Amino acid sequence: MIFASSNRHKYEEFRRMLSDLIDLKFLEVDYLEPQGEDTREIVVTSAKWLSNYIREPFFIEDSGLFIEALNGFPGPYSSYVFKKIGNEGVLKLMNGVENRRAFFISVIALSYGRGIEVFEGRVQGTIAREVRGGGWGFDPIFIPNGSNKTYGELGDEKDRFSHRGASCRKLREFLMRFGSDRLP
Amino acid sequence: MIFASSNRHKYEEFRRMLSDLIDLKFLEVDYLEPQGEDTREIVVTSAKWLSNYIREPFFIEDSGLFIEALNGFPGPYSSYVFKKIGNEGVLKLMNGVENRRAFFISVIALSYGRGIEVFEGRVQGTIAREVRGGGWGFDPIFIPNGSNKTYGELGDEKDRFSHRGASCRKLREFLMRFGSDRLP
Repeated sequence: MIFASSNRHKYEEFRRMLSDLIDLKFLEVDYLEPQGEDTREIVVTSAKWLSNYIREPFFIEDSGLFIEALNGFPGPYSSYVFKKIGNEGVLKLMNGVENRRAFFISVIALSYGRGIEVFEGRVQGTIAREVRGGGWGFDPIFIPNGSNKTYGELGDEKDRFSHRGASCRKLREFLMRFGSDRLP
Repeated sequence: MIFASSNRHKYEEFRRMLSDLIDLKFLEVDYLEPQGEDTREIVVTSAKWLSNYIREPFFIEDSGLFIEALNGFPGPYSSYVFKKIGNEGVLKLMNGVENRRAFFISVIALSYGRGIEVFEGRVQGTIAREVRGGGWGFDPIFIPNGSNKTYGELGDEKDRFSHRGASCRKLREFLMRFGSDRLP
């Protein structure tokens, strides 16, 4: 099974979450993503396109942070926005904003011999008032509900709380039904 | 000649700039745009895709505001960012930032019987310290070099100074060489 992405951090997360089940390989690739506001649509379109080139089962994942007070910004463009303005930029936009509610979604598209399956994980939380902890991307400013730590402070424990953990658990169930590594 | 876009404001600008030359029709369509940081690549990919569906000469345009102190943000995602955080959001990010330099680019892709031609316009300027004037999008916060007014304060005079005016002048030259409305 292949995970295709330009983001090694995501690969590391999936690999550790699925290590008991499959030997996940990493295809480092910057594939075509359509612009749009619907993460599910983006990831399915990309998976269909990639399936012309990858001849064995693979999955990709797209995720986004949607901040309520910012009308869902940065949403599907989270990685671009992070690269440009970082956590500092987002905290600046949230300066003086009382409503800190946000959610993170993760959408996996698995492509295999019988088509494409989609698995979605969604986690509600809040935006921290300052950068806390390590991790990558928006990890240091997102506090998932049920924890008082940011993703960045949670370390590997992040998987239990995270949007990617949630989508990955659904992928795992699907793989187990098939006998893990036996997809057509 | 058709102009395809989801943005009527852009159509109005092109129509008035080309009115002496051609009768520009508007095809209101929300076409597929790939994600990416290169506006030229985005617009060419979209034009190729659209050329499968539009059977006469047409052009599309993509534009972006690149702010130096924000590493080029919002760049190719300008319309999305505008919709989500508006001029107020950008001014908030620029709060306390001394370097106000920015540029606007406009890239036109013209598709006709012999393929695709690209015309690019680029205008340097600065980000205003507050919203000034009308217009649409980031018009009220962008001051082109050579003026002390924002695009929003310039009204129709904007065309003389603007990135879209610059790309459109190149398109106009190309059309005039062909005998305006006689493209294959």
